[in-house]
Amino acid sequence: MAVVLSVDAMGGDHGVNVTVPACIRFLKEHPDVSLILVGDRDTIYRHIGHNLSLYSDRIDVVHTTEVVAMDESPQVAMRNKKDSSMRVSINMLKLGKAGAVISAGNTGALMAIARYVLRTMDGIERPAIAKILPTVKGDVCVLDLGANLESSPEHLLQFGIMGAQLMKAVSGKTTPSIGILNIGSEDIKGHEGLKKASALLKNSGLNFYGNVEGDDINKGTVDVIVCDGFTGNVALKTIEGVAKMIAFIIRKEFNSSLPSKLMGLAAMPVLNKVKATLDHRKYNGAVLLGLNGLVIKSHGGADEIGFYYALKQAYHEINGGVITMLKDYLAKHKELLNREEPKKELLEFTDLNML
Amino acid sequence: MAVVLSVDAMGGDHGVNVTVPACIRFLKEHPDVSLILVGDRDTIYRHIGHNLSLYSDRIDVVHTTEVVAMDESPQVAMRNKKDSSMRVSINMLKLGKAGAVISAGNTGALMAIARYVLRTMDGIERPAIAKILPTVKGDVCVLDLGANLESSPEHLLQFGIMGAQLMKAVSGKTTPSIGILNIGSEDIKGHEGLKKASALLKNSGLNFYGNVEGDDINKGTVDVIVCDGFTGNVALKTIEGVAKMIAFIIRKEFNSSLPSKLMGLAAMPVLNKVKATLDHRKYNGAVLLGLNGLVIKSHGGADEIGFYYALKQAYHEINGGVITMLKDYLAKHKELLNREEPKKELLEFTDLNML
Repeated sequence: MAVVLSVDAMGGDHGVNVTVPACIRFLKEHPDVSLILVGDRDTIYRHIGHNLSLYSDRIDVVHTTEVVAMDESPQVAMRNKKDSSMRVSINMLKLGKAGAVISAGNTGALMAIARYVLRTMDGIERPAIAKILPTVKGDVCVLDLGANLESSPEHLLQFGIMGAQLMKAVSGKTTPSIGILNIGSEDIKGHEGLKKASALLKNSGLNFYGNVEGDDINKGTVDVIVCDGFTGNVALKTIEGVAKMIAFIIRKEFNSSLPSKLMGLAAMPVLNKVKATLDHRKYNGAVLLGLNGLVIKSHGGADEIGFYYALKQAYHEINGGVITMLKDYLAKHKELLNREEPKKELLEFTDLNML
Repeated sequence: MAVVLSVDAMGGDHGVNVTVPACIRFLKEHPDVSLILVGDRDTIYRHIGHNLSLYSDRIDVVHTTEVVAMDESPQVAMRNKKDSSMRVSINMLKLGKAGAVISAGNTGALMAIARYVLRTMDGIERPAIAKILPTVKGDVCVLDLGANLESSPEHLLQFGIMGAQLMKAVSGKTTPSIGILNIGSEDIKGHEGLKKASALLKNSGLNFYGNVEGDDINKGTVDVIVCDGFTGNVALKTIEGVAKMIAFIIRKEFNSSLPSKLMGLAAMPVLNKVKATLDHRKYNGAVLLGLNGLVIKSHGGADEIGFYYALKQAYHEINGGVITMLKDYLAKHKELLNREEPKKELLEFTDLNML
């Protein structure tokens, strides 16, 4: 079955300079994929260049006249820029023309517009931003990473459901384990809200592991880790910071003297493998989960390789059928979600340009 | 001036097997230091062994009959174990016999007992757990790491004052910069409490940088980072987890084949330097700040080298005069702290055995 991805070609720090080459590379390696490139027509065609002859039957360009700026207020972007590449690329999803949308643009605006256009899935009160990260054994999905400053026990339960369905779709595990990010493993740890979330998850029928701590994220203790967006965002960025510091130290030591440089040269093949394993670009792409459609947020500063992997993530998640699986799960488990609270459609957003 | 350290010799996962050898090593390298070793007399002397003849004039053993277990409730430990090595080692500080106490025991109990015995400093509502961590440029002090689940704006201001005085004492910087751990750099980011804390710090006369994010911790953006104990604990443990994962990947790649092993051998001197730079044992020891006395918590699982560095940290902090500096600062800046809230002496504790 052909997979169609809708791409916000203008989004991100580098816009078409990154998105178009990444798309061409992706088309080359995925013969079953078609792309809708949304943005300024002339600019896009200019960047496609001679590749058009190779992929013209798998590229559809949709012209738009506006671009959401990286630092623009989500509310302003949503109200005023109806012909932005971001908005129109999401519309493609709404219209059923694509299986996912990928944007490297302003995270807050992407969440606001996607939420407005696609609406939140039945049973989900708050969408969450999820990311799949490497661990010493397999991957882990962490959510929320910043869509919600605070999260009620019910929201955390919903994050657990969403994360588990995502991991089921992409990892093939039938019952992914779920942990709550906390400051101790015992049930009595943490805020009252986390204790309640623990009780809800325990009685949910999901594979609930219990509390996990910060060091469990990369230890691979569980398949899914739920937390409020503040905690998740701090943890995610902390991971980036540590990885950068260690890379800095390794580089510094191997460059500290001529003998060190020669040793670095001798060990280059292995050092390159380490670098490739830890390449954060392979994990580029966060998922805006809980909407009626698959929305992938690429890091704003992603390069061609990074954006390529965001496309790849969308591709895998479409093939895994995550949206259908999640909808089915929610429909079958209404008893978990019978809450009275009216659904709010627009909330505060945290800016996640770094994602 | 001679420095006297009071050591809870029985504390930690390994007790005297670690604390006594670390103490002997420390005495050897620091001729101006005397130690009070608190715990079971016979056991301690047995572990000192033939070293007694070398250091008998700089070792004082204080006999106790009880030990606080690593998993014991802080409240029970405080009420029932008046002759524990932990309690009596803290008493030495209270009695003016030592300049600092070092324990690898149960964190919650250490905080509870230290707080009860030493009392909170005038002007400080909540003690905090602080740790000094490496960055790509210099060190950073992060607090709180788990003494307080939640922190008011006033608490965060007090953490800023404490962290700044600590860094002044140990780094020699006269006006250490302070950041608030948040999910964006702009003033409008984060919880209401963080915005208020930002306003308080801005008007405090301290060198307030503004908001920082998770990746700023190891980037060295500021000298002091303040946060509530939940966020700080998650960040700290996340750092541990990432560092372990990266070490695991490096080891794995260098052991993946015979050629890789040979390359590892060739690069061994540099790899060892990297390992030494990143050795977490050098940063062992968290400070319980805000008490009338210097209390250092070693990681419960620390080995001899790790415990040695906890002693070294106490030694540097005594020499830097952190307690006097902090007391003076608080006395001179009462206008920052004129709050009405009655001081509570006992609060919930989070278990920080991992520290």
